[in-house]
Amino acid sequence: MHDPRLLAARVARLATTDPDGRPHLVPIVFALEGDTLYFAVDRKPKRSTTLRRIENARARPDVTVLVDHYEDDWSRLWWIRLRGRARVLDDGAEAERAIELLREKYPQYRDEPPGTPVLAIDVTDVRSWPATRRPT
Amino acid sequence: MHDPRLLAARVARLATTDPDGRPHLVPIVFALEGDTLYFAVDRKPKRSTTLRRIENARARPDVTVLVDHYEDDWSRLWWIRLRGRARVLDDGAEAERAIELLREKYPQYRDEPPGTPVLAIDVTDVRSWPATRRPT
Repeated sequence: MHDPRLLAARVARLATTDPDGRPHLVPIVFALEGDTLYFAVDRKPKRSTTLRRIENARARPDVTVLVDHYEDDWSRLWWIRLRGRARVLDDGAEAERAIELLREKYPQYRDEPPGTPVLAIDVTDVRSWPATRRPT
Repeated sequence: MHDPRLLAARVARLATTDPDGRPHLVPIVFALEGDTLYFAVDRKPKRSTTLRRIENARARPDVTVLVDHYEDDWSRLWWIRLRGRARVLDDGAEAERAIELLREKYPQYRDEPPGTPVLAIDVTDVRSWPATRRPT
């Protein structure tokens, strides 16, 4: 969780599980604290489908997050995969703290902070490729 | 499937389902033909875990692929999500054609072509955000 590539990453992809058992996938912006990854929803009114990631995580909290780097020089590819257990924070101090972390990381959130629910993912397993880190 | 952003994309993320029901996630390079997306495995010897994506798709062929664009100007974010049904091609003409398509798209594959198995994903559903395409 202290891999500098993970700390520096601006975007990740979150996989949850749809009610029919199929994986669901969205890009997310996120903040980290300790072994927990947070993301929030935008404040704008959302259609119900936009919250599918939240409802999926509520129903089936075993989720997976991928941070990766692509470039045409394939010797420089890498990815970090996080498996974790999701908690949906509808309000409270931890949700407020997560929103503060997101606003610190993303200037885009400063004028228009995200709202709740916040998803907290307690990371239980980190795997990266290549296993040996190359100099960056 | 004919969205120019999808045709131009160099990398996607593939979500399959692990035997324990949790989503599994890897970045992939891919080629498209008709309504089918293809990717292959590198020829180098792989540990069994590296083929998890293939074994998952064989066991549970309902998979999801995400192509997205991130930049710090959030008005320019977009994603395209493909849901489809996977077929594992252990050999045969379709696998050879897929490898040819991948070599045409990626010069990196020209000296060291990928091998089999090839995963073919017959796309059944395409969803994109924002729903209205912005000028690029």
